[in-house]
Amino acid sequence: MTPAPFRPDVLISEVGPRDGLQSVQATMPTPHKFAWIDALHDAGLREIEVCSFVPARLLPQMADAAEVVAHALTKPGWTVMALAPNLRGAQAAMAAGVHKVTLPVSASEAHSLANVRKTTAQMVDEVRAVVALRNNTAPGVHIEVGISTAFGCTLQGEVPEDGVVRLAAALAACGVDEIGLSDTTGMANPAQVRRLFQRVFAEIGERTGAAHMHNTRGLGLANCLAAFDVGVRTFDSSLGGLGGCPYAPGASGNVVTEDLVFMFEAMGVRTGVDITRLIAAREPLRAGLPGEPIYGMTPEAGLPHGWSQHV
Amino acid sequence: MTPAPFRPDVLISEVGPRDGLQSVQATMPTPHKFAWIDALHDAGLREIEVCSFVPARLLPQMADAAEVVAHALTKPGWTVMALAPNLRGAQAAMAAGVHKVTLPVSASEAHSLANVRKTTAQMVDEVRAVVALRNNTAPGVHIEVGISTAFGCTLQGEVPEDGVVRLAAALAACGVDEIGLSDTTGMANPAQVRRLFQRVFAEIGERTGAAHMHNTRGLGLANCLAAFDVGVRTFDSSLGGLGGCPYAPGASGNVVTEDLVFMFEAMGVRTGVDITRLIAAREPLRAGLPGEPIYGMTPEAGLPHGWSQHV
Repeated sequence: MTPAPFRPDVLISEVGPRDGLQSVQATMPTPHKFAWIDALHDAGLREIEVCSFVPARLLPQMADAAEVVAHALTKPGWTVMALAPNLRGAQAAMAAGVHKVTLPVSASEAHSLANVRKTTAQMVDEVRAVVALRNNTAPGVHIEVGISTAFGCTLQGEVPEDGVVRLAAALAACGVDEIGLSDTTGMANPAQVRRLFQRVFAEIGERTGAAHMHNTRGLGLANCLAAFDVGVRTFDSSLGGLGGCPYAPGASGNVVTEDLVFMFEAMGVRTGVDITRLIAAREPLRAGLPGEPIYGMTPEAGLPHGWSQHV
Repeated sequence: MTPAPFRPDVLISEVGPRDGLQSVQATMPTPHKFAWIDALHDAGLREIEVCSFVPARLLPQMADAAEVVAHALTKPGWTVMALAPNLRGAQAAMAAGVHKVTLPVSASEAHSLANVRKTTAQMVDEVRAVVALRNNTAPGVHIEVGISTAFGCTLQGEVPEDGVVRLAAALAACGVDEIGLSDTTGMANPAQVRRLFQRVFAEIGERTGAAHMHNTRGLGLANCLAAFDVGVRTFDSSLGGLGGCPYAPGASGNVVTEDLVFMFEAMGVRTGVDITRLIAAREPLRAGLPGEPIYGMTPEAGLPHGWSQHV
């Protein structure tokens, strides 16, 4: 009898090649991106955000987006995702052949205007147009929205929870497949994470998507744990903690994939990711971005004495 | 009508002056210790581990232990605690006038021998003698044991949970007031923290004491959250993350008090600690240990936009 296929308990969605690379000044050369993406695939990651489709004059780091997608698509068994800030970007992403498009919609008007020069309502309209495009031209593509600044905003301060829940409902009504919550500015706390995800689950059920947490004040893993506790099963993170948001002052530090995988695997929650290979994937990152600081407590401390992982 | 006295929801037990200072090479001069302890009191901390009573030839950093206790006792409204590795140390601590003596008892035999040159069973006997001494000579003194390497050991590897629970029960039977669990080597994970504290609560109830977590692999706050979730209400931490254990290779990084207080206060869990003053207490630490690296994400990132705390 064939053994049942391995099904991880949680999905680690690696955002480094997009979120990380667009946050640093240097541009990683395309062949280095390929090598890094290959190493991430080898480590067992099964979802990856490889680029964003934005004008190259705004983000020269992403000028090779279509090439990068094409390369990632040569690897089997994973979901290749790109970020698009608008309809035009989504069109380019679908044309490049991505499996999944992710759009950022800010719950904070101030952040929305700073990030994409549109109000939140205008972004919902944009998302609706992207869903229509998908339905007409690429029905197999998955549409995800990450609600930015869902837990607070450095520009606006508090972000009312009712507004986040209403926004999630509006996006679900647009036909978005998956709606996650992003702590863009590193302001979330575990109590809030549990409360808000529970409310979103109650509102949109199965369409509730990823927790995208930052480690700005050291709470990244605690917030991921809190999200896991209330049923979240997809987690965004970035190898070496690369990334943040250039338009949210003070925001820094995506959750470190290595530490996140270590936490879950140590808990007996299977990620499907081989942590030794994951740590090895820091090498092509370093090679492609010489001198850029990369983070991670687990790679620095090493795996515990007697550690064994059955991937 | 007089308002009800403020009661924090959790007790933050600052261990920096003991655990931190004994882990660094340099010796903080006594007047600097006084200034640092004063700043910690000003910040609203209500329990502090100020020193350990050990021979000065072993830990010259602690040669002024009795003076430090005497100084800390001049401050009102907090519990002054000292570590003692044995009966002789406990005697000296009580003679110095501490409110509370804490003894480390390792669940790992290998760590116990390396740390105090006694087996675990010999340490339980030592604790029994300390309780008898307390009963006869200083009945008001509180006796705490922190079970070291409760979650794993770098020397021995896995530490069986049954053994930890049995050890907690044996210590409770000795008359110890409070028995906590220490992740001496930074190997704990949140699932294990919940499971083990729940088992210890089931075994010894109200005598269950502090969670002493390390941030070796970045899981310090997640582990504190996990402990809080199952009812732990006392948390050890160290300002600036100073400390570790010199006898457990690879162990480093106490949980950072600043980040721990930030997490709880952001969650609406009251610590009684004023985080702005707490961050200010890093200055006397720096002044007393020039050049020593100190950590903390919250002090680096700053408090969030719009943060307000009602201490």
